[in-house]
Amino acid sequence: MPLTSDQEGEIAALRADSRPTLRATVPALEEILHTAIPVLDHGFVRVVDYMGDDAAVVQAARVSYGRGTRKVSEDRGLINYLMRHRHTTPFEMCEIKYHVKLPIFVARQWIRHRTASVNEYSARYSILDREFYLPAPEHLAAQSSANRQGRGEVLSGAEADRVLALLRADAERCYADYLDMLNEAEGGEARDLARDGLARELARMNLTLNVYTQWYWKTDLHNLLHFLSLRADAHAQYEIRVYAEAMMETVRRWVPLVYDAFLDYRLGAANLSGKMLAVVRRMLDGEAVVQAGSGLGPREWRELMAVLGRT
Amino acid sequence: MPLTSDQEGEIAALRADSRPTLRATVPALEEILHTAIPVLDHGFVRVVDYMGDDAAVVQAARVSYGRGTRKVSEDRGLINYLMRHRHTTPFEMCEIKYHVKLPIFVARQWIRHRTASVNEYSARYSILDREFYLPAPEHLAAQSSANRQGRGEVLSGAEADRVLALLRADAERCYADYLDMLNEAEGGEARDLARDGLARELARMNLTLNVYTQWYWKTDLHNLLHFLSLRADAHAQYEIRVYAEAMMETVRRWVPLVYDAFLDYRLGAANLSGKMLAVVRRMLDGEAVVQAGSGLGPREWRELMAVLGRT
Amino acid sequence: MPLTSDQEGEIAALRADSRPTLRATVPALEEILHTAIPVLDHGFVRVVDYMGDDAAVVQAARVSYGRGTRKVSEDRGLINYLMRHRHTTPFEMCEIKYHVKLPIFVARQWIRHRTASVNEYSARYSILDREFYLPAPEHLAAQSSANRQGRGEVLSGAEADRVLALLRADAERCYADYLDMLNEAEGGEARDLARDGLARELARMNLTLNVYTQWYWKTDLHNLLHFLSLRADAHAQYEIRVYAEAMMETVRRWVPLVYDAFLDYRLGAANLSGKMLAVVRRMLDGEAVVQAGSGLGPREWRELMAVLGRT
Amino acid sequence: MPLTSDQEGEIAALRADSRPTLRATVPALEEILHTAIPVLDHGFVRVVDYMGDDAAVVQAARVSYGRGTRKVSEDRGLINYLMRHRHTTPFEMCEIKYHVKLPIFVARQWIRHRTASVNEYSARYSILDREFYLPAPEHLAAQSSANRQGRGEVLSGAEADRVLALLRADAERCYADYLDMLNEAEGGEARDLARDGLARELARMNLTLNVYTQWYWKTDLHNLLHFLSLRADAHAQYEIRVYAEAMMETVRRWVPLVYDAFLDYRLGAANLSGKMLAVVRRMLDGEAVVQAGSGLGPREWRELMAVLGRT
Repeated sequence: MPLTSDQEGEIAALRADSRPTLRATVPALEEILHTAIPVLDHGFVRVVDYMGDDAAVVQAARVSYGRGTRKVSEDRGLINYLMRHRHTTPFEMCEIKYHVKLPIFVARQWIRHRTASVNEYSARYSILDREFYLPAPEHLAAQSSANRQGRGEVLSGAEADRVLALLRADAERCYADYLDMLNEAEGGEARDLARDGLARELARMNLTLNVYTQWYWKTDLHNLLHFLSLRADAHAQYEIRVYAEAMMETVRRWVPLVYDAFLDYRLGAANLSGKMLAVVRRMLDGEAVVQAGSGLGPREWRELMAVLGRT
Repeated sequence: MPLTSDQEGEIAALRADSRPTLRATVPALEEILHTAIPVLDHGFVRVVDYMGDDAAVVQAARVSYGRGTRKVSEDRGLINYLMRHRHTTPFEMCEIKYHVKLPIFVARQWIRHRTASVNEYSARYSILDREFYLPAPEHLAAQSSANRQGRGEVLSGAEADRVLALLRADAERCYADYLDMLNEAEGGEARDLARDGLARELARMNLTLNVYTQWYWKTDLHNLLHFLSLRADAHAQYEIRVYAEAMMETVRRWVPLVYDAFLDYRLGAANLSGKMLAVVRRMLDGEAVVQAGSGLGPREWRELMAVLGRT
Repeated sequence: MPLTSDQEGEIAALRADSRPTLRATVPALEEILHTAIPVLDHGFVRVVDYMGDDAAVVQAARVSYGRGTRKVSEDRGLINYLMRHRHTTPFEMCEIKYHVKLPIFVARQWIRHRTASVNEYSARYSILDREFYLPAPEHLAAQSSANRQGRGEVLSGAEADRVLALLRADAERCYADYLDMLNEAEGGEARDLARDGLARELARMNLTLNVYTQWYWKTDLHNLLHFLSLRADAHAQYEIRVYAEAMMETVRRWVPLVYDAFLDYRLGAANLSGKMLAVVRRMLDGEAVVQAGSGLGPREWRELMAVLGRT
Repeated sequence: MPLTSDQEGEIAALRADSRPTLRATVPALEEILHTAIPVLDHGFVRVVDYMGDDAAVVQAARVSYGRGTRKVSEDRGLINYLMRHRHTTPFEMCEIKYHVKLPIFVARQWIRHRTASVNEYSARYSILDREFYLPAPEHLAAQSSANRQGRGEVLSGAEADRVLALLRADAERCYADYLDMLNEAEGGEARDLARDGLARELARMNLTLNVYTQWYWKTDLHNLLHFLSLRADAHAQYEIRVYAEAMMETVRRWVPLVYDAFLDYRLGAANLSGKMLAVVRRMLDGEAVVQAGSGLGPREWRELMAVLGRT
């Protein structure tokens, strides 16, 4: 259970406190506002605030393109057009804020997206909780032999048990030693009065990278979609992809027209190079193109065939 | 009157449409939400959406600094501390969106603040309205002789009349020729069927820099305060300062604790260099320091004396 | 002739001053360093500094992907891979600085790219030169009737002459009145001692949007390529596209491997949506797909057919 | 010794390869270019490229402020003015690229500075080296009892030995188990052929936060100075401050005029709030102001007295 009872109480209080506003509101998102969506063994994602809706994207596009767009009466068509032609600024008009609990090694990947605002729980000031990520057996993957960055088969049997036992034992020992070096009991008083505790900002270095941290993460819709296009992708590491997938569901509730356009023009789309397009044109003209003579390298050829559903 | 009747109708409709939300709301800002605050002769600023409040800043600071800050029971004290020590990320947790109508030469200054999202009315797609800024007589300032970037005395009498007449005549003639080259009547049909109109994207180059444009401008509270610290400053050009001043009032309604901290620690504050501090220390020790021997150049000395209220 | 004799002398001095460095250098770019490439009637682009080369991109990719990439012996293949899979951070490792002279209405489009550093000539502090853009006759396009943002046929004969005369007369008159209101002669003294000059920060509002300004513009290679992908595109306005084209040539000299990859995977590429890919697969299976029943709207269908070279 | 012999060979080769350039060069920085400055027990900082110099800052300021600044003949005075009045864009015209080796917990603080480009060694693709930070005995500080984020006295004797032994043993065991789970020998082949290795992207979660990583980090001079003003400050954690101090020395060599201005107007400066300034004015008028009645809280009062050198 990823939430403390304090946090659960806080969420219940927030959800009981409805107020009137003249701002754009999205009932489907309000339904899950503040609520934690569980991710991994101890993590979660929850929407804590938002600004704007599908109509805010349309409104911004219409001020940019002015009177002329009055005729584009259909919002869906306009949003599709914006997505297809990468007119990105109207999507910046919506903003969302998440509260996320996640393992540190996932946070290290995530933070590389710089166009967001972050306030992270600081282990310099506070003591981290005793929670660390251990993969479920079905995600305990071997190194891929074909692909340096990929996963191969799932480990099984005694080997899986052995790996899990190592991960658990190391995380537990490091955390116990962390507490021991801190020499702090819950209330802040020393556990052992005979000695000083190590500074928190130093003791944290003893933790393993699967310990959970948490943060508020706020970004606009354009940058959120960019994040999701990379992290909800099949090539993303499983442990960050599950966060992206949970966030996809929040986007679907928040801006359904943008969500549909995103599925079609980004997640389901492919970028074909000039050389790839030349191959497609030759194939459409009835030519039996093979890799040799295609102008593409073997790897690009395989990528193109995969996109075209030919194997 | 800066608003069209279309815009007035739209604002009235928005203000009549109250909805329940579980998000943070700020009644004092809701009171003026969507309403246009007039600025200059044809411009305005209006808040069209916002996210967060004083408590959102506090909440973000507390997640960063963790359990330890539970004891800091007073929100005002925490916000003052954050502002004083330039802990900026908690202020990024609030977001605001303005609709602004402003002369192009003001827009050119404003846009230099890059950490904001902008959707501007496009003269490439649409025809700009016949509205241009003419300074009120009391703002028709002469060039300062002492200060290249400053204004001197106000022009008066025949000279003022002459300058205003030139500004008006040139803006009107350029706008009339713009319409003439476009050869478009209100509905989009040609005014003169015997000839083609010049492309909008070209015709716009004939407009003067005092013509009004408009945009949606969205930024977070931290970057807004940075903008205001530069543009609400006495050294800012009058024509952008009046926009900043109108926005100051929206900040006061939105996040009153942050506003107070901003007044004390930014707008009313001064940055004293190491050398300036050395001078202040000597003065406090009773020494009659003068510029020669102070370690400061004549200009720095004047700046310090102004800050200290000695002349 | 876009350069003043002062500027020409400065460039000659810079080009005569060769110094040893241990940094990456690119002889093909050094050949044109500091030199102005003419653009439009009075504008130019010139490279004034740069950091990094093709090898710097490769080096950054290899630190990211570590020992594993030692086997990727071929730099070109690695750069193509990075470009194809949108691994953008290695391209951020190169930086370039341009000095650009351009009409204000072009500068207004350009500045919307926020991920760059800019120092623009300030008309608040200084007096702008008497130079404004007038389109060459072959670029004096009519408004497209099919496409709000596009150009139609070129104006010709008496109509072209009339438009050019208006543009010229308005720019000249506005500039003359600007000088008159400033009341400043070359050396800074008043032209007419009997009156004050209007403040520079106010007088500038009388200028037309085709007056030239200039700036230093510095960005990294990733953001430069993004700029070029939008502004060297056929849909970009001609007056900014010619700047992008001049910069393309500087990129070709600077980072030839990146340039080739950019041509193939960006400028010559197309993004096909999920629905578009489904159509292509059906066509490759021999089906005679038409728009009705394709799942695509008429506009998307035309876009797809254009990409596939079918009309 | 923080560098591998491979890296040392590479640096020697780079330092032997001098080439002519027409760009701004800085001999004092060239002297140490590519060379590693040791930091902590296994880390380093080294400058691998740079763009611009003091004169590039001046040049950018002069294009902004135009002809008018011709009279400001002295570069130092202009740079001081820019720094004092926070005219930041001219400082963005210089760029620098570092190669840094640093513990992961330091990297986590550092990366919060978003306005930089980063390429980090990826433990998803590669195996991290067996190197982790252990504080020197004189930096093994106890938690401050007065200040949550600060350090108190240094631990000593048996307690220090015990803490160091724990840190070392945990890091070593976690690293050994990391290698064991990976099941990879140096060349990439399996150590134990009877079993699969865990995927690298998973195994890395077993490492402790004091393990070293490395990255290329590139930023402009303005953002570098902002980073240094926070991280070279006495309140910064020691383990990041030593990196900032090593970088300070590179700035001193690179842009000596900017460096001096930075020392006086930033590092040695203090921001006094409006209320603090009021207190200073009263003191200068001879009043014996005490905290009660000063308008300042006890904490602010102490901060002001510290700045004024009164205790």
